Amino acid sequence: MHQLYFTPGPSALYPTVNLHLKDALSKGYLSASHRSAAFKDIYKETENNLRTLLSLPDNFSILFTSSANEAWERLIQNTVENKSLHLVNGAFSKRFADIASAYNKDAIVYSAKEGEVVHVDEIKEDQEVELIAITHNETSTGVSQPLEDIKKLRNKFPDALITVDAVSSLPIVDLPYDLIDSAYFSVQKCFGLPAGLGVWIVNQNCIEKAEKLENKGIITGSYHRLLAMYKKGKDFQNVETPNVLGIYLLGKVAGDMLTKGIGQIRNETIYKAGVLYYGLQTHPLLNPFVNDEKIRSQTVCVFNTNGESERIINELKKKHMVIGSGYGSFKSNHIRIANFPATGKEQIEMLADKINEIQ
Amino acid sequence: MHQLYFTPGPSALYPTVNLHLKDALSKGYLSASHRSAAFKDIYKETENNLRTLLSLPDNFSILFTSSANEAWERLIQNTVENKSLHLVNGAFSKRFADIASAYNKDAIVYSAKEGEVVHVDEIKEDQEVELIAITHNETSTGVSQPLEDIKKLRNKFPDALITVDAVSSLPIVDLPYDLIDSAYFSVQKCFGLPAGLGVWIVNQNCIEKAEKLENKGIITGSYHRLLAMYKKGKDFQNVETPNVLGIYLLGKVAGDMLTKGIGQIRNETIYKAGVLYYGLQTHPLLNPFVNDEKIRSQTVCVFNTNGESERIINELKKKHMVIGSGYGSFKSNHIRIANFPATGKEQIEMLADKINEIQ
Repeated sequence: MHQLYFTPGPSALYPTVNLHLKDALSKGYLSASHRSAAFKDIYKETENNLRTLLSLPDNFSILFTSSANEAWERLIQNTVENKSLHLVNGAFSKRFADIASAYNKDAIVYSAKEGEVVHVDEIKEDQEVELIAITHNETSTGVSQPLEDIKKLRNKFPDALITVDAVSSLPIVDLPYDLIDSAYFSVQKCFGLPAGLGVWIVNQNCIEKAEKLENKGIITGSYHRLLAMYKKGKDFQNVETPNVLGIYLLGKVAGDMLTKGIGQIRNETIYKAGVLYYGLQTHPLLNPFVNDEKIRSQTVCVFNTNGESERIINELKKKHMVIGSGYGSFKSNHIRIANFPATGKEQIEMLADKINEIQ
Repeated sequence: MHQLYFTPGPSALYPTVNLHLKDALSKGYLSASHRSAAFKDIYKETENNLRTLLSLPDNFSILFTSSANEAWERLIQNTVENKSLHLVNGAFSKRFADIASAYNKDAIVYSAKEGEVVHVDEIKEDQEVELIAITHNETSTGVSQPLEDIKKLRNKFPDALITVDAVSSLPIVDLPYDLIDSAYFSVQKCFGLPAGLGVWIVNQNCIEKAEKLENKGIITGSYHRLLAMYKKGKDFQNVETPNVLGIYLLGKVAGDMLTKGIGQIRNETIYKAGVLYYGLQTHPLLNPFVNDEKIRSQTVCVFNTNGESERIINELKKKHMVIGSGYGSFKSNHIRIANFPATGKEQIEMLADKINEIQ
């Protein structure tokens, strides 16, 4: 029997993926050369649809990585000579800081308490910081750094590059692109696509920083040096033979989202998050992991389970519904429910009903 | 109308890909967590089928990269402190050497004349060489380094690691795994799969070398440090959320190839290459780019066209057959025809007939 996936990535496929996959097969796109006009047209459509969907200004370029992990590595290699600053509010933001350390950078870490965000007022001014890493939506714990904090950080660090981890929140979040220099997401989250593709957005400040580092003789990588990716991207190509299918599907689903309207998708997300957070409010076993409503993720809803995660997950499995366990050390004490656009209102309502039946 | 692809990658899809794709969709594999037992089973099946298909000894591990480009970069980062040696017989082997240079390594290059291979007898002994890069099958020019040369290099460099680029020749080539330490290929070539996945094979010597470099404090990368990939791979997982679909399809197609028999697939490849090289022998416009039959690729057949590439390609397009142009500076003077397992004997025979009609 068909299962309903509410897992925080890989997650439920966007309803049109099946159709687009069949189209890609029947049109031979998966056999076409990645240097052909046919591929460039795919790349262009994906770029155009994404740019419109995200309201991305012209001074930003859209590049393709193999994962968000790769975006972390390329950011460190290409935009940091010595010092980066990381707002850590969970396992994934921590991993970005670890990648900076792996490349021998001085990675300054400000850690939030569990289920909270970093208080940006406590972050000290530091002229030497070259890159500030903010995780908008921490997939591991469902905590969301308020967008107002980006403004505060920009004021405090006028010259640093700011990059935003929106792995599990784009295109739901409307990022303040005038205040940031880079952002990235993975396609297996809010876009409901098969995993294996990351999208890395950079503005001219990032490009100039990479040039500056290279002029100093600093190693910025090889085939995926930012400048190499940027140059090929301007010609609607990738350096390597890319995940053509992933790029194709992303463009098509972004197009479908445009047809539906990003406003409506965002409104539905708020509604569905409400169904989960308020609909499960009186559940005897559950309470939201993030106490403060203002920093609760709209797209990855995380609940404390008082050690009952496994039982809840198994009960739901019997009803053909798959939700995520807690991440890392929270495995037995959290459940994580993806609230991505692929999942309809009725499905989230049904899930909340079924969870409420588990006592 | 349906097109027949004879392009050297991305190429024609293996005939069973369509079916496996539908299965993956209907079974929900694309939504399953990359930490789930379901995913580990996929990983195990792919690893087992590949190991059997390639007759890969137990001291080799199978790792997944996003591309062959990534395998180049990770090899340089993880197995070379100072010096690598590259046998360059075309654009792709050259690019590997460039990646070594990008990481400030001393990349010794031995270049072959166009359409020839490097004469290994001319390569000087050098105790300092840590990694020798051999390209078995140069996709850009269709020249193939004889396997006997690996033995000679092993004798001359008993302590160096040897890595073999078999991007467009595995699983057709039966590599001498007792003489080498690493090999890699891309799935969009001989396996006839959608692009976006590389397979990197390493033995314990590579692992030990990476450990040695890390103990010296040398940067070996971050999320895709060889040791991190190796550790996760032993648990049938990837560090990042991987191209699950690619790994799934690779395992299934490797299984189909096992069912057919690798011996038969290799015999058919030789037969089909013969149809092209001998069937086009008297063509007034064409002659094989590689003069010496012993070093002609069986899987990527390249012909001089006396400047008529575009016309030949366009004539074939009218008959719904797509072949590759020459690579780089050879664009107008070569055609490249993929002779991968996805393409049947009848299709290659028909292609040769149609090319012979173009005068």
